Amino acid sequence: MELRPIGVIHSPYKDTQKLPYQGYKGKGISQIEVFEEFEQGLQDIEGFSHIIVIYWFHKSEGYHLLVKTPWDDVPHGLFTTRSPHRPCPLGLTVVKLVARKKNILKVRGLDALDGTPLLDIKPYISGVDERSVVKSGWLEGKLGRKRC
Amino acid sequence: MELRPIGVIHSPYKDTQKLPYQGYKGKGISQIEVFEEFEQGLQDIEGFSHIIVIYWFHKSEGYHLLVKTPWDDVPHGLFTTRSPHRPCPLGLTVVKLVARKKNILKVRGLDALDGTPLLDIKPYISGVDERSVVKSGWLEGKLGRKRC
Repeated sequence: MELRPIGVIHSPYKDTQKLPYQGYKGKGISQIEVFEEFEQGLQDIEGFSHIIVIYWFHKSEGYHLLVKTPWDDVPHGLFTTRSPHRPCPLGLTVVKLVARKKNILKVRGLDALDGTPLLDIKPYISGVDERSVVKSGWLEGKLGRKRC
Repeated sequence: MELRPIGVIHSPYKDTQKLPYQGYKGKGISQIEVFEEFEQGLQDIEGFSHIIVIYWFHKSEGYHLLVKTPWDDVPHGLFTTRSPHRPCPLGLTVVKLVARKKNILKVRGLDALDGTPLLDIKPYISGVDERSVVKSGWLEGKLGRKRC
């Protein structure tokens, strides 16, 4: 299975050490450059307040199946975390769409490194992607606290 | 960029003609088989009520940048739709985790074909993946109605 990027993400985060742990909460603005050949696929996207951005964790190498995160002092299964180190290094963030200019989308809350290859954009649809009654397992209540 | 699947989806939907248009609403149960070598990565997943499943649209061939969907009679940009025909044929569904037995996850609301290659599983996290004030552009109010 081979993928080729449809664009590239320009973000304020130049290296992994500077990536915020909860970037989705941040006010940092990123620019998603969709390659011009795909621009027509963005038609009508301005009507959506949020989009789902899928990208390639291009700095990720290898993975462990048990992961210690900043949110807990015991390890948990990789697939219960959002660690970038995964067998398929696919990243996913729901972001706020702030503006569009031609093939450039200005978004808020994208916690991806500068230069990250963009793979896909999907509309975030109320009632489809949103679940109101959710149990977040070991992460429950932890994200609001200080990191371990 | 090359991907290899981490599992396979066993679902009641045997061919594309029988796929429900709003499968996420359905009561159909699918079984996600995570290959045994990755089973440890599922540790503690039972605590999560919902997970994000990312898969490969293996029956998808080619794409158009403007798409007519069953929800409207005019075409819209591909990236404002969830069409399986995309430059990177990645599918994404938020599903209810019903049960786990070893490396098998029983889920509800997964609208993927039987035999679909599984690429990734991520925890659905309240407050991260959930947005309560959402504008759904041209799709607003349409999903509840009859298809065109």
